Amino acid sequence: MIQKVSVADKFRLIADYWSPKVIGEVNDFWIKAVKFKGEFVWHHHEAEDELFYVVDGHFVIRLRDGDVELGPGEFAVIPRMVEHMPVAEDEVHVLLLEPKSTLNTGNVSNARTIETLQRI
Amino acid sequence: MIQKVSVADKFRLIADYWSPKVIGEVNDFWIKAVKFKGEFVWHHHEAEDELFYVVDGHFVIRLRDGDVELGPGEFAVIPRMVEHMPVAEDEVHVLLLEPKSTLNTGNVSNARTIETLQRI
Repeated sequence: MIQKVSVADKFRLIADYWSPKVIGEVNDFWIKAVKFKGEFVWHHHEAEDELFYVVDGHFVIRLRDGDVELGPGEFAVIPRMVEHMPVAEDEVHVLLLEPKSTLNTGNVSNARTIETLQRI
Repeated sequence: MIQKVSVADKFRLIADYWSPKVIGEVNDFWIKAVKFKGEFVWHHHEAEDELFYVVDGHFVIRLRDGDVELGPGEFAVIPRMVEHMPVAEDEVHVLLLEPKSTLNTGNVSNARTIETLQRI
């Protein structure tokens, strides 16, 4: 049986920030739900483009040559190799769409790196 | 420069039904915006899973073993080889997420088949 997914229901299951959870799979891509609050880390992805779609709230994707501010119903695609850092003044609910090979901190490995994704 | 995309703005540019427009690209995937109204055709995709995410309105994905009804903020992934037919009683605004190789009518070729996608 094919089950539908309520995005709002999935966000209710997420308690932590900066920890993407897998909520869907389309061929070699994951759909992930993540809550941001505060500043992340500057990083890039070697081979993966990354789509950020805002469901609720606002945040900024800092880029070396200008920022992109996103609100509900807006998305941006950060191409591979482009350095970026998400920053959220208040909590924001974001869907990520990216190849399964994408690591959350990209080329950086630190306390925020999540090697094993949780599925909710 | 990386431009953000307002999904609502894109839908305002779409006048026709059943004609997906490309609004974003992530590696080998397209993000498409499409308006449905009425019945489509039964079809499947040989190799591509297909994600339907509702932005506005409601519709039903008919399946051989049961239907899935989707409303705003809900999505479903139809796996490759699974026959399906979207049906919308009233106009619905849907985002599609699928590999670039995906043809709208899948294994079927008819008047509704769109070989060349428009980018908006």
